[in-house]
Amino acid sequence: MDVYLDNAATTFPKPLAVPQAIYDYIINNGGTSGRGSYEKAILADGLVYQTRRTLAKLFNHADPKTVVFTASVTEALNLALTGILKPGDHVVTSSLEHNAVWRCLKTMERDIGISISIVPATPDGETSSEDVKKAITPKTRLIVFTHASNVLGTIQPIAAIGALAKENNILFLVDAAQTAGVLPIDVQAQKIDLLAFTGHKSLLGPMGTGGLVVNCDVPIKPLISGGTGGDSAYEYQPDYYPNHLEAGTMNVSGIIGLKAALDFLNAEGIANIRNKEDQLMNYALEALQTVPGIELYGPQNAAKTVGVIPFNLINHAPEEIAFFLDQQCHVMIRSGLHCAPSAHRLIGTISRGTCRIGIGYFNDPSHIDALINGLNAYIKENK
Amino acid sequence: MDVYLDNAATTFPKPLAVPQAIYDYIINNGGTSGRGSYEKAILADGLVYQTRRTLAKLFNHADPKTVVFTASVTEALNLALTGILKPGDHVVTSSLEHNAVWRCLKTMERDIGISISIVPATPDGETSSEDVKKAITPKTRLIVFTHASNVLGTIQPIAAIGALAKENNILFLVDAAQTAGVLPIDVQAQKIDLLAFTGHKSLLGPMGTGGLVVNCDVPIKPLISGGTGGDSAYEYQPDYYPNHLEAGTMNVSGIIGLKAALDFLNAEGIANIRNKEDQLMNYALEALQTVPGIELYGPQNAAKTVGVIPFNLINHAPEEIAFFLDQQCHVMIRSGLHCAPSAHRLIGTISRGTCRIGIGYFNDPSHIDALINGLNAYIKENK
Repeated sequence: MDVYLDNAATTFPKPLAVPQAIYDYIINNGGTSGRGSYEKAILADGLVYQTRRTLAKLFNHADPKTVVFTASVTEALNLALTGILKPGDHVVTSSLEHNAVWRCLKTMERDIGISISIVPATPDGETSSEDVKKAITPKTRLIVFTHASNVLGTIQPIAAIGALAKENNILFLVDAAQTAGVLPIDVQAQKIDLLAFTGHKSLLGPMGTGGLVVNCDVPIKPLISGGTGGDSAYEYQPDYYPNHLEAGTMNVSGIIGLKAALDFLNAEGIANIRNKEDQLMNYALEALQTVPGIELYGPQNAAKTVGVIPFNLINHAPEEIAFFLDQQCHVMIRSGLHCAPSAHRLIGTISRGTCRIGIGYFNDPSHIDALINGLNAYIKENK
Repeated sequence: MDVYLDNAATTFPKPLAVPQAIYDYIINNGGTSGRGSYEKAILADGLVYQTRRTLAKLFNHADPKTVVFTASVTEALNLALTGILKPGDHVVTSSLEHNAVWRCLKTMERDIGISISIVPATPDGETSSEDVKKAITPKTRLIVFTHASNVLGTIQPIAAIGALAKENNILFLVDAAQTAGVLPIDVQAQKIDLLAFTGHKSLLGPMGTGGLVVNCDVPIKPLISGGTGGDSAYEYQPDYYPNHLEAGTMNVSGIIGLKAALDFLNAEGIANIRNKEDQLMNYALEALQTVPGIELYGPQNAAKTVGVIPFNLINHAPEEIAFFLDQQCHVMIRSGLHCAPSAHRLIGTISRGTCRIGIGYFNDPSHIDALINGLNAYIKENK
């Protein structure tokens, strides 16, 4: 039995409807979106629009047109950051950001002169909105926060930070890479101006999909310019959505796959998905504590995290553990820094990284049992 | 019978192996590329690398690592243009560019202060390399040319322009959106420094795929920054390829679909594909000339074009013709400006656009017959 426990990187398996919808579209439709006036192009365009509408509903966003598709959450975050920030702007961010945010901010700091304040977090990855407040200056234009750490799993106090941002007339960008599809997100109640999401993690869709929900009126400079299927004689990107931030032929098959995934999610119910993952987290946390020499990081509390558990075995390299689990036990986990070094600084693992399991909706307790058996076998062989 | 004649927008159908490979990957692998050390992630990574290698071979490019994947040719062109051009730089471009180039150049002209010279073309879309030479100034840093017009089909003298660019130490960027997969491209012989391609047109792959072949040592500023699966503690994009220009989880299923398409192309042989499309072009050109009141644009010579034929019927709106053909005859063609207004200025159709048929490898003469019958029926009904 293959046991996949790297769902924080990408979820596997996908609902069967996802590859089926992609296959069906490529075989039976294949039309572009927004480019042709023949029926099947209009049908493809309609499916893309329905996907925007389903996402808008999922995030309680009023206008499907301002759900902009990108190829990844990384692109969505870069689009928001580079599209909004100007020289001299100050940004407040968390201690837990993925490189999709961090490298983009550092590049803008170096190249155009923004300044960055990092809000402290506990070693469990917990942030206080009071500390966010203290970091705000008169030049603060944007707060960017991950919704949950991809290393520690810790959920951030998004609603409190959103309220704070609104009070201070500061834009609020949330990286929902680890949360969209498993935690409730309400851009209106949580006062999120810009929500970046990926399709291929807890939304259960294919890679190559993601997007930005633009819940504010701020002008955003497009990341790329090009064909939009209309107003072709105009020499710049049009200023209306979604075309303003979308150029070139879209990944229609991917978006249609994402729609199938969203339909699956809605049928199962996000609360049920979260509940199942929570139960698996509790099961896993309890089981992992029995492994000799294990160091568990993060809150170790399902209610405070998404389905991510980082750990080490004392005196063993994480990559050797991951390699053994894969080769000997067919258990797939991740090792390393997971593209988020600052979270590792919090827990003192920046030099060696950690192992990380990522629990998904299609896991069950037998997968955790296989992991525990594998870890015990590793310890036995490597005493 | 549905007749698809919009292959210049996206090819349809795809080889059956394309959706099959995507389906198989999503069901049976699903791993990320460059992110995990377990076997299936390494297998996915290997397939992505093989796709780079197949593309490198197709374009006679020496190093697969500098075949960078993007979500579209539009993104690849924007990456090259914004990654290289600096304030004060001068750019030489054709009269035939798609908005993927033109809007990007105009935006940079407005925002950072580049200057642009447009090389004249005949109404048939033919360009002389002598005119390119005349446009070069001491500040010219880059020449960007489409390999073939998406409106007129006209093939541009890429090898001559490449030689000229090399002599003058100017970078040469080619937009191969309409040619990759159907015309031979040799970045070494044609002295192409940067080749932007899409996966979903004549390469016969899925939407959401494309890339940039970097055949030069010039520093290119990444369009986006983010996770690269390695060197995570480094705060900027790494400077080695392909990671330098690729951030975030890739569209692995799309790339694997593209690989299946490339394998199909190589098995059929690009020369055979071109030969079949040429024969269809000749057949179509001859048949279209029999239609009363038709105005054909472009060279009307298969040897000088890719499989694109723009036309109008005197005193009829192109969108009405396209609508009739779709609704009454199940023949799908395009109408409008096709995101390339400057080519329409050459032929005097900027205000109303044209109809356009785009011939693909899977078309046959009966499809052209259906088009001609449809046009004659339209004329009869709309006298």
